[in-house]
Amino acid sequence: MRLATLRHHGRTRAARRDGDSYVLFPHSDVGTLLGDPDWRVRAATGGGATVPVSEVDYAPLVPHPNKIVCLGLNYASHIAEMGRDVPAYPTLFAKYDGALIGARDDVVLPAVSDRVDWEAELGFVVGRTARHVPRDEAMDHVAGYTVVNDVTARDWQRRTREFLSGKTFESTTPVGPELVTPDELGDPGATPDLEIRCEVDGEVMQRSRTSDLLFGIAEILSYVSDIITLHPGDLIATGTPGGVGDGRDPKLYLGPGQVLRTVVEGLGELRNTCVAEKSA
Amino acid sequence: MRLATLRHHGRTRAARRDGDSYVLFPHSDVGTLLGDPDWRVRAATGGGATVPVSEVDYAPLVPHPNKIVCLGLNYASHIAEMGRDVPAYPTLFAKYDGALIGARDDVVLPAVSDRVDWEAELGFVVGRTARHVPRDEAMDHVAGYTVVNDVTARDWQRRTREFLSGKTFESTTPVGPELVTPDELGDPGATPDLEIRCEVDGEVMQRSRTSDLLFGIAEILSYVSDIITLHPGDLIATGTPGGVGDGRDPKLYLGPGQVLRTVVEGLGELRNTCVAEKSA
Repeated sequence: MRLATLRHHGRTRAARRDGDSYVLFPHSDVGTLLGDPDWRVRAATGGGATVPVSEVDYAPLVPHPNKIVCLGLNYASHIAEMGRDVPAYPTLFAKYDGALIGARDDVVLPAVSDRVDWEAELGFVVGRTARHVPRDEAMDHVAGYTVVNDVTARDWQRRTREFLSGKTFESTTPVGPELVTPDELGDPGATPDLEIRCEVDGEVMQRSRTSDLLFGIAEILSYVSDIITLHPGDLIATGTPGGVGDGRDPKLYLGPGQVLRTVVEGLGELRNTCVAEKSA
Repeated sequence: MRLATLRHHGRTRAARRDGDSYVLFPHSDVGTLLGDPDWRVRAATGGGATVPVSEVDYAPLVPHPNKIVCLGLNYASHIAEMGRDVPAYPTLFAKYDGALIGARDDVVLPAVSDRVDWEAELGFVVGRTARHVPRDEAMDHVAGYTVVNDVTARDWQRRTREFLSGKTFESTTPVGPELVTPDELGDPGATPDLEIRCEVDGEVMQRSRTSDLLFGIAEILSYVSDIITLHPGDLIATGTPGGVGDGRDPKLYLGPGQVLRTVVEGLGELRNTCVAEKSA
């Protein structure tokens, strides 16, 4: 099953992919749909009007999750290029929902930064309340997978010892286009093994496989649930592989007009044009 | 004006302090009240049933803010005891709302940590949408002040290079009891100069003044608003002064049964008993 949040007649609506169309639900977005304990049945069977895929306007997959949890340093290739040590525990940081954009929306390059960089990531969305969940039960709490680009202002990320400032600029983080349920990706009990790729103006910058994650999906979900309750609709971004612009020689950053394409095999793609922030 | 969020007949209600009573509003909490552009007038004049102060049960002042922004390293005395450098920019990190508790609730000591520490802080709540706000207009966007204790699991804070894991354990962060509007604290255009104090079982552990903040209220609000839009009800915790348990010799941490008292002059106090987390 593939679910999306679409902009439709001035508001957002959750929808299910049905061939070349989306079937609209009454729920405002995928996050609120997942809040229904019977969401699997409702999403599989319910729905009303349809919209052709060719005409859709994707909102952020989960526009207002209770929390967005991001992992840093979760691929060996990215750890090496950033000159950091392999961590013993998942490195967690947050992002606020004002950073999220839809799968075809413009990435707004902040006027105050000239070092905006890409980070293609596998995302997953929580489908069931999770607190102190053992690793071997963790996968039951995953609603599905999606594509995230954790676009980062490197200069602001490094201004202080905490990543947050560089990670949560307004309208910088595309997420979507769809939530793909685990049954569509092989063994639902394992971290899916998918190619992950990031292109800038058609040039491949990052290419890896999600099976290279240091901390896999079950381990991440279980770990976070020991800290705080995860709620349906919560978004977790699992970290980026090597190939970011800041790790290159010479370094590369995003500029206005460039097209950022983020693909995870089987999940679809984000395609976002970078635009300069309009002055206030 | 002093506002609070109270638990009343199985739900939460925003309320205004009126002498020895609180006057209840229809709004579910102070955050939703602040979402009304006319909140100042409504809060000053509206209201219905009353509850005596002696009988109230405080919920977190803002139970579900769109964002919680915390500052680290914002008092010279705390920077010194933690052995860090004076930062050139505000050090920002996040907390999720599941960490918040009311002003008299128990602090739940996580079973997985044995280094839980106190951090008394001045908090403020946003009263008006703020994006790219210049410093000299920033104070107009402050709804009021409150007391926060940014209780921290030091071992988890230091497991990775990011603070978040140690800062957002479930039910660890008291906030309240009231939102005090700036006009009650002297010059509403300046960071209020108030004594801030933290006591554990009656022993004073932290004592400083909010005028010692490295980055003041206007500077913080303006700075964050250059990153992302601040919304009414957003909570900002401004950092803690010296005297935390982890900075002492020998080091001290919180244990079950201890009473944590956090006082900011003119704002009221948090009084929270530490309890061990029940096993899952």
